[in-house]
Amino acid sequence: MHYFYVLDISQPQITLSTEESEHCIRVMRHREGDIVRVTDGRGHLADFSVIEANPKKCILEIHKLIEENLPLRHRLHLAIAPTKNIDRMEWLVEKAVEIGVHHISFLLCDHSERSRVNMERMNRLAISALKQSQTSWLPIMQVLSFDEWLDNTSNMTADRFMAWCDDDNNRQLATEPFLHQDILLLIGPEGDFSPEEVAKARQLGYVEVKLGNRRLRTETAGLYGCLTVAMREITSPIPSTQE
Amino acid sequence: MHYFYVLDISQPQITLSTEESEHCIRVMRHREGDIVRVTDGRGHLADFSVIEANPKKCILEIHKLIEENLPLRHRLHLAIAPTKNIDRMEWLVEKAVEIGVHHISFLLCDHSERSRVNMERMNRLAISALKQSQTSWLPIMQVLSFDEWLDNTSNMTADRFMAWCDDDNNRQLATEPFLHQDILLLIGPEGDFSPEEVAKARQLGYVEVKLGNRRLRTETAGLYGCLTVAMREITSPIPSTQE
Repeated sequence: MHYFYVLDISQPQITLSTEESEHCIRVMRHREGDIVRVTDGRGHLADFSVIEANPKKCILEIHKLIEENLPLRHRLHLAIAPTKNIDRMEWLVEKAVEIGVHHISFLLCDHSERSRVNMERMNRLAISALKQSQTSWLPIMQVLSFDEWLDNTSNMTADRFMAWCDDDNNRQLATEPFLHQDILLLIGPEGDFSPEEVAKARQLGYVEVKLGNRRLRTETAGLYGCLTVAMREITSPIPSTQE
Repeated sequence: MHYFYVLDISQPQITLSTEESEHCIRVMRHREGDIVRVTDGRGHLADFSVIEANPKKCILEIHKLIEENLPLRHRLHLAIAPTKNIDRMEWLVEKAVEIGVHHISFLLCDHSERSRVNMERMNRLAISALKQSQTSWLPIMQVLSFDEWLDNTSNMTADRFMAWCDDDNNRQLATEPFLHQDILLLIGPEGDFSPEEVAKARQLGYVEVKLGNRRLRTETAGLYGCLTVAMREITSPIPSTQE
């Protein structure tokens, strides 16, 4: 069943965006009466029938609701310094959507190698990964400075982790208990966090963890974080505390 | 410290390949007396000093041996059907080297979308990932048919798994016990394994497992396998049986 994305599927009749209409009618050649699957990227899924096969403004009518996909038990908020080579961030976004991530923040750090990220392109990529992997959860994405991140998340009830390659540090994300539904994970640039950034994060209760025993590239570290959180609900028998 | 690759570092004096000499002398601008780090991709690491800074045929002399890097407790033999878009296999190789994999076989299956893989290019990629992530383990890679794989591995003492998206199947690789040092993991093409292939694998004791609860692309499934095996030694307290 072909899969499409709209902002809101709560209405009995919906109109696909120009891009999605084009994909549905021109590329997938759907006609009046065809049934397609639609998600809003917020866990809702429904089958709709094409009632107006307009390649610019395709209109769909509700056919039947699919039961809601539960999100991952833990919501990962990944805050990662964008790499110089943006392709590496693009594939991270694609993979993170496949595996499951709640929030991705591109973090501007003292040692960041890149200060601009084309969020329109990132969102298009995330939507196409959403459709490809037929999940129904689209991550919220933003670009912000290290300090803004700390401010924005300061009141969240969450487990806080910072990926940090200090040799004296033997704590591993994979073995840390997750006590809350929300997991905040900071991943620094190739040049790592500045001592000031590390000090600020420590003060706010961020726990320094390793992501395995190998030295990973920034984007691989990001994916490692996504998989660690996603695997937790398979490997840990008892659900953790939820707010 | 700059990192280079040679086939054999057991000699007190070694010569870098043309490619590595070029990288060492022209790109990194090393001169006589400089110390560089060298690996053979089989767990051996040593520091050498440049004694002849020839950009085509750079000669190095042993400075000091670095203690051997232990391999991952479990050796993953990943057998994966190459994707139509070879870039996806290329990044899998890069990431798998970073995270750790013992063996990668590109599997020609009944539903394979691609029957040729440029192994020379794949090996170059693996070596550059080895150098980038400064690990000292280079995976053995090959292309072979599904039946050849089964024949070649039939006498191995190993845990055998097949990634299989059957809805009735609730076994997860992440929670399966690993009883042996060697772990064989089969990952099929987008079109999945043929019923004949599944039957053959079952007969040889392959356990069907899921890789999480999401639908993953072939290359993401491969990386999921690598991370599951790599994480095991962090999360499982007691070492498993070793042959």
